[in-house]
Amino acid sequence: MSNRVEIHYCTQCRWLLRAAWMAQELLTTFTQDITELSLCPAEGGVFQVIANSKVVWCRKDAGRFPEITELKQLIRDEIAPEKQLGHADKKKT
Amino acid sequence: MSNRVEIHYCTQCRWLLRAAWMAQELLTTFTQDITELSLCPAEGGVFQVIANSKVVWCRKDAGRFPEITELKQLIRDEIAPEKQLGHADKKKT
Repeated sequence: MSNRVEIHYCTQCRWLLRAAWMAQELLTTFTQDITELSLCPAEGGVFQVIANSKVVWCRKDAGRFPEITELKQLIRDEIAPEKQLGHADKKKT
Repeated sequence: MSNRVEIHYCTQCRWLLRAAWMAQELLTTFTQDITELSLCPAEGGVFQVIANSKVVWCRKDAGRFPEITELKQLIRDEIAPEKQLGHADKKKT
């Protein structure tokens, strides 16, 4: 099973460092689960995270960047739903 | 025209940080040229950089990691052969 995550980030907004940080967080947490994490330069204020072709975060829709903990939960739900994320993991109600 | 770069790195060797650093160097230098830079977890001491399906660096073949300047030259030659890399750029003879 392969899992592909993409982070699309606006180069004009200089969001590479933020995107690269989040990439490393995700690759560290999901070492055994992510097959490929793609950093994709974009423009126009785009910041989107996509897991297996599903948009799990869109900055324009959400009006903000994700917290890293909530981003991990969203990615987990897509690629490794049984995985526990430790103390930062909120139970779904 | 799309240009895809992949960095395959061994997770057992803990080469994520090195791979992520090189990814950021390449995305900074080739902002307009790289469409997608993929970080691909691997095992068994793999450290390979691939540009448009061509292996431009293989640690096992080379016996070492690339210097960042030579990696940029190799990537440049594949995806943006006309691009000048500034003072660190060696002229080909």
